[in-house]
Amino acid sequence: MYICSPDCCSLYYERKIMGKRNLYLKTTPVKEALDSYMKTLKDCVQPAYESIPVTESLNRITHKAIYAKYCSPLFNAAAMDGIAVSAKTTENASEANPVELVLGKDCRIVDTGDPIHDPYDAVIMAEDLLETEEPDKVKIINSAAPWQHIRPIGEDIVAGEMILPGRHCIRPIDVGVLLSAGILEIEVVKLPTVAIFPTGTEMIEPGTEPKDGDIIESNSRMFENMVIAQGAKAVRFPTIADDYDKIKEAVREAAENFDMVIINAGSSAGTEDYTVHVLRELGEVLIHGVAIKPGKPVILAIVNNRPVIGLPGYPVSAYIGFENFVTPVLEFLGQRTGKQNKTVEAVISRRLVSSLKHKEYVRVKVGCVGDKVVAAPLARGAGAAMSLVRADGFCVIEQNSEGCEAGEKVQVELYRDMAEIQNTVVVTGSHDLILDVMADMMPDRFPGMHVSSTHVGSMGGLMALLRKEAHIAPIHMLEEETGIYNIPYIKRMFREPVALIKGVGRVQGIMVKKGNPLGIETIEDLKGIRYVNRQRGAGTRLLFDYRLKQAGISPEEIHGYDREAATHMAVAALVGSDSADAGMGIRSAALSMNLDFIPAGNEEYDFAVPVEYLELPHIRAFIEVLKSEEFHEKLNELGGYTWEYAGEIRIIE
Amino acid sequence: MYICSPDCCSLYYERKIMGKRNLYLKTTPVKEALDSYMKTLKDCVQPAYESIPVTESLNRITHKAIYAKYCSPLFNAAAMDGIAVSAKTTENASEANPVELVLGKDCRIVDTGDPIHDPYDAVIMAEDLLETEEPDKVKIINSAAPWQHIRPIGEDIVAGEMILPGRHCIRPIDVGVLLSAGILEIEVVKLPTVAIFPTGTEMIEPGTEPKDGDIIESNSRMFENMVIAQGAKAVRFPTIADDYDKIKEAVREAAENFDMVIINAGSSAGTEDYTVHVLRELGEVLIHGVAIKPGKPVILAIVNNRPVIGLPGYPVSAYIGFENFVTPVLEFLGQRTGKQNKTVEAVISRRLVSSLKHKEYVRVKVGCVGDKVVAAPLARGAGAAMSLVRADGFCVIEQNSEGCEAGEKVQVELYRDMAEIQNTVVVTGSHDLILDVMADMMPDRFPGMHVSSTHVGSMGGLMALLRKEAHIAPIHMLEEETGIYNIPYIKRMFREPVALIKGVGRVQGIMVKKGNPLGIETIEDLKGIRYVNRQRGAGTRLLFDYRLKQAGISPEEIHGYDREAATHMAVAALVGSDSADAGMGIRSAALSMNLDFIPAGNEEYDFAVPVEYLELPHIRAFIEVLKSEEFHEKLNELGGYTWEYAGEIRIIE
Repeated sequence: MYICSPDCCSLYYERKIMGKRNLYLKTTPVKEALDSYMKTLKDCVQPAYESIPVTESLNRITHKAIYAKYCSPLFNAAAMDGIAVSAKTTENASEANPVELVLGKDCRIVDTGDPIHDPYDAVIMAEDLLETEEPDKVKIINSAAPWQHIRPIGEDIVAGEMILPGRHCIRPIDVGVLLSAGILEIEVVKLPTVAIFPTGTEMIEPGTEPKDGDIIESNSRMFENMVIAQGAKAVRFPTIADDYDKIKEAVREAAENFDMVIINAGSSAGTEDYTVHVLRELGEVLIHGVAIKPGKPVILAIVNNRPVIGLPGYPVSAYIGFENFVTPVLEFLGQRTGKQNKTVEAVISRRLVSSLKHKEYVRVKVGCVGDKVVAAPLARGAGAAMSLVRADGFCVIEQNSEGCEAGEKVQVELYRDMAEIQNTVVVTGSHDLILDVMADMMPDRFPGMHVSSTHVGSMGGLMALLRKEAHIAPIHMLEEETGIYNIPYIKRMFREPVALIKGVGRVQGIMVKKGNPLGIETIEDLKGIRYVNRQRGAGTRLLFDYRLKQAGISPEEIHGYDREAATHMAVAALVGSDSADAGMGIRSAALSMNLDFIPAGNEEYDFAVPVEYLELPHIRAFIEVLKSEEFHEKLNELGGYTWEYAGEIRIIE
Repeated sequence: MYICSPDCCSLYYERKIMGKRNLYLKTTPVKEALDSYMKTLKDCVQPAYESIPVTESLNRITHKAIYAKYCSPLFNAAAMDGIAVSAKTTENASEANPVELVLGKDCRIVDTGDPIHDPYDAVIMAEDLLETEEPDKVKIINSAAPWQHIRPIGEDIVAGEMILPGRHCIRPIDVGVLLSAGILEIEVVKLPTVAIFPTGTEMIEPGTEPKDGDIIESNSRMFENMVIAQGAKAVRFPTIADDYDKIKEAVREAAENFDMVIINAGSSAGTEDYTVHVLRELGEVLIHGVAIKPGKPVILAIVNNRPVIGLPGYPVSAYIGFENFVTPVLEFLGQRTGKQNKTVEAVISRRLVSSLKHKEYVRVKVGCVGDKVVAAPLARGAGAAMSLVRADGFCVIEQNSEGCEAGEKVQVELYRDMAEIQNTVVVTGSHDLILDVMADMMPDRFPGMHVSSTHVGSMGGLMALLRKEAHIAPIHMLEEETGIYNIPYIKRMFREPVALIKGVGRVQGIMVKKGNPLGIETIEDLKGIRYVNRQRGAGTRLLFDYRLKQAGISPEEIHGYDREAATHMAVAALVGSDSADAGMGIRSAALSMNLDFIPAGNEEYDFAVPVEYLELPHIRAFIEVLKSEEFHEKLNELGGYTWEYAGEIRIIE
């Protein structure tokens, strides 16, 4: 076995530089890895049980079947308000010959639920009683059948009968029935306890002012809540520095006091190596590296007969590693049957290439357009945690598949409600901050309705409309010859009439650092400095190319012309952090990053919508939002917008 | 306004006896009632908000949109392990002309996640480096493109961009991302607080030894947990006796300190009247009585601008009243969008008659038989809480519908997982305790598999098989002429071959009170005493009729021949509680109720299964259980069974 320690530097260098590091890269297929791990695990670990009060048993799992102690009702009880009688005494009652009953003698007043005793064996409803002169007498004109309107003892629950089977998850109604049946305590599966260890010298606690190179440690909080969501108990420990012995001591102790241990590897490969070597020394490492992407460097180990799992540091890898390996272990320890994610068949909106080597989880946004369910892939990087937040589900590309073509049918594991997705406006096209604002306003003004936007640039948006994969394409495309926005492109690309919903006017310009240190005035001044561009198909890039042409400058003269960022905000961030000197974008982005802004012209940011969608309730809601006072106030706060035509509809044929 | 108090006796009598009680019976349709109530409510109540730490925000609902404070990554970071270089210095690298780089001068070793600074603007993967003689020098044979293998600042999250919209339910991943973005506190919807008041003089606390007429108060615990399941806070108050002023004082105070108040009316009509009159005095009663069954006597009121809802006392009415009226209010106060129950189309197995007057909720067991989804109605009484526990969902019969015929298609609101239902053996026929035992053993031995049994007697079971609405019919039917069990009936009723899976031999007999006080020896002795019979079509009733015939006794001579109970246990309970003197049933039932037992002969309790189902995995599992050692031990504990042939299959053609 090959142990490394922080001080064996030459070895460290060698591993770092010469590419001999990939100890874990023997990747096992996901299913194979999980099956073999669970098999070994079940030989040495068993679920534990405990007895708890029924009143605190919501969502707990029963161990064995539970049998009633009492009957319910506990006695023969009146099922109606009225009087209790002995059926015999009523035998000959009829219209012709009514029978008179004396309260307290022949009969007794009963409310629903009151006990019925000898000699009484039937109840007559108050409605069937006739008045007499005397207040303590009543008349009946129909005989009562024995046991009529009486709930016999045990009608609902019979003492000794099984109320709940084993391995059953307690619901509110179960609590009620258990108590009615005289059960106060039940034996349930003990909640598994999970120790969570973040590691990594570069990690800082949330709330600490980050310095250069620091990474805010947030995975352990995500795990903590994922564990809770699995119905288990989580204990989060403080971050451990990259120190072999510290990690070893922590894990050794935890493996004695907890049912399960999760080690989060921090982001450095060095750390990861510690983890696996620590685990090899303390126990047995069954799997190191699975064929899953993101999430490959997973470690499945057993220490002191307890499951110990090492998860990668990138948030998305961490999340997918947890779902695939920690969840099944918790389900076993907690005796819960996993809730299978609902999957839907969807059309993938972009080509997806995947390596044969891995089972890949691609995060997708899902929308219903016409009769199609469309899945739009999001950022695939393991670091792109936001893509997990934005996603509606995963499109899983199995190992040994090369991926799929645009328009191909794929299975999507949803983790958002389908009904919600059906009420979502699918917006695909050019990015602007106002889309976030609208996404925020929709559910508030129109409960249950949502806006989901993917940023692929104006051209990409129109293409999505043509493929019927989006409802709305936000665009700002300048026709160089005429200087007219949007309409010419729509006319050129569509046969059917398309509506142009007027959006906002906005100022585009050059974003530069506060105080404009490089004194950039015109497009000329961009030569030689560090520029950052927008991706192909973006309206802002069209505008930039247009300006370059006007100024007779060739792209080669712009250092960084090929360096692409996907949104206005991303460009602003690069300039703001001095990793670029200038980039083109909208004023609101510049303002929000506190940058200087050199205007380069106004443009029209509108929404193209195939006419067929105009009447959909959520599209109409979208237009309502565009027209609303509240929205215009927010534009005002953002700055750099005009909205005199916002929400107006122009049909283009 | 008409107030009643416990002491205005004459009035009380009059109301009780003369049927002038139905003040609330003006029943409003469910939707109309809810809409008008919610409308008024929204005018006087608004959701409240509070600021809490992100680390404690799981499952809370955001108020407004949340924007990132920091970028992530916070700096340009290495996306690979390797070295950071300035792209320029690598420009001319090639096979022919490798470029040599000096560690610490031309390049720096970086781990994934390390910051990249000027002059460096690219990362070369360790894998692409070649060794040199000197340990501090490396060679490359490909030039590096500017910004390759670098995660630009803000690639994942850009400061100022929206992370989460308003009205969003926080998931574990959201917690992680919020912290990464520098957010420590967020504003969320305050958890609504709900006061729960059980009322009723006849109510006793769980754990108290029940006396005659007592009812164990369990609804408030069910409500408490339903409130928690709705993501709100519940405070349960001790039961209030039926006292106008006490109830009034309690409600008045609660309406000042809680966001919502629930009053549970106990089971007596008297109490219910108090509640409505108290609420009329304290505030406004908008609705009293809705067209829903069970659950009609619901009270929707507003006191001190807070929602106050009175729910009926019968457990099922209480549950349905809560789901229809409390849940929507809590969803509004908690700003949660209701999770719509999944509904499936099923075939109803029995005729359902419903009054036009109400929207009726019929509890059903759901099973998949062949290509059919079958819904079998359960007990409909408002008191039958166990039917809620046993049910897989509700079949809702809309108001103004007369119900549906057997075999008709109906919509079922499921509250069990469809996948689980597909792995459930549908058992319909004669009742025996061993069915509970098997239902308990199945999921334990075969995770994910279940047994669901409905008790309709042997004949009813065979009918269900014919209609393809059950997999298995447990039967014990004696042919009088031949004295042969089961086989003759199957031959008579089925054209296609049917398998008879041998079950157990069991002793039937007369159950009498301990010590047999009436000295019952033979069937003769049943004359004149209080007998309780089984329902038509039950094998036990066939046996009883057979014995009567043998003894030359006519049913008229048996007092209680028409008094029916649905199961062996129910009969045992009636005898055990002295509300009957004798009844016929199986020994195990007698034993579990501690009764004496006069054997009346052995019978064969077997399982009829259409051959086509024999190979289904869950049917095979069922047979495995029948054969298992563990099962035979349990039969032994129950007593009164033999099992030499259990699990053997006889094909009957």
